[in-house]
Amino acid sequence: MTIRYPNGKSYIPKQPVTSSSKSHQYANRGMTLEEDLNYTNTYYLSQGIAVIHKKPTPLQIVKVDYPKRSAAVIKEAYFKQASTTDYNGVYRGRYIDFEAKETKNKQSFPLNNFHAHQIDHMKHVKAQNGICFVIVRFSLYDEVYLLDCSHLFHYWDQQLKGGRKSIPKSFIEQTGMLIKIGLHPRIDYIGIVDKIYFNETKN
Amino acid sequence: MTIRYPNGKSYIPKQPVTSSSKSHQYANRGMTLEEDLNYTNTYYLSQGIAVIHKKPTPLQIVKVDYPKRSAAVIKEAYFKQASTTDYNGVYRGRYIDFEAKETKNKQSFPLNNFHAHQIDHMKHVKAQNGICFVIVRFSLYDEVYLLDCSHLFHYWDQQLKGGRKSIPKSFIEQTGMLIKIGLHPRIDYIGIVDKIYFNETKN
Repeated sequence: MTIRYPNGKSYIPKQPVTSSSKSHQYANRGMTLEEDLNYTNTYYLSQGIAVIHKKPTPLQIVKVDYPKRSAAVIKEAYFKQASTTDYNGVYRGRYIDFEAKETKNKQSFPLNNFHAHQIDHMKHVKAQNGICFVIVRFSLYDEVYLLDCSHLFHYWDQQLKGGRKSIPKSFIEQTGMLIKIGLHPRIDYIGIVDKIYFNETKN
Repeated sequence: MTIRYPNGKSYIPKQPVTSSSKSHQYANRGMTLEEDLNYTNTYYLSQGIAVIHKKPTPLQIVKVDYPKRSAAVIKEAYFKQASTTDYNGVYRGRYIDFEAKETKNKQSFPLNNFHAHQIDHMKHVKAQNGICFVIVRFSLYDEVYLLDCSHLFHYWDQQLKGGRKSIPKSFIEQTGMLIKIGLHPRIDYIGIVDKIYFNETKN
């Protein structure tokens, strides 16, 4: 039985990370980028580097039970389509906003990973001079790129005029920046943010 | 039957705003501040003034059903305590973060409206040079104030050392700033943000 979000993506319930469930989660590449980013953000927070959180999944709650002497139990609720991106927060006073997606494609990144509300949100953020980008993982190569949202807008708007439905990997390689994968942090995107948005290079 | 969040606050399910449900919601002052802020944020967004959203309530999903040809139904879930504040976003490139609370008290604002995780989060935001404050409504007077979080930290830390469990209204009147209540926007807190954090006064 497969659970799906409104966008058709499979829903995989979050589980406590134990040694047994961890291997299971790593087998599922769909969860790994989110997991890696959550670990990364926890690292940034603990080190005082940045304060970035993933937003909770928005739900429409319909029915709640309140058993005596127990916590409230939600008995009926539905997934709602998010009106924003998944991640946001603050770095050196600036507002940071991004969406993270991965693909198993070899040559391109499909635009159907985004929905129109998210693109609108990113355009609003950009208009307010916020820092806004996408983090894209090509699972087959285990390559993770940061791409400023302006390039996403370009391809998105072209698509609406009948253009191609994906961003070529070659374009992302040339225009985006490859993010270093490590242990602490796992996906060091702040290093790239320094380079692109603060014109700084740290060693 | 009263539904409660982990912090003991009553849970009131969100309902579509219709003419009949609206009068009901206005009778419940507990929802009004959130409602007013949501309208305010929608106004700011539509006018290109700021991009501020309320975060979804965090839930722990335990069981999901996927009926054929229907949307996924969450059959068991629990409220989780939020690790951050409720509202954040971007204004003129800066990161904005706040919590909004109201009280029926006459003389003071009780500190038990906040939990330790939220205070920690606000301290992290401040350390990253984010703009961080609380919006406090005194329901009996229908007065809404913006108070920079540094003052909240002061009272919070004093409380931990055995100090008083609330912030005097007189202190909030003197140190915070009264927010203009109107129709569009309903609670014009960005005008106060301009004054406090950008040293600007608009007419």
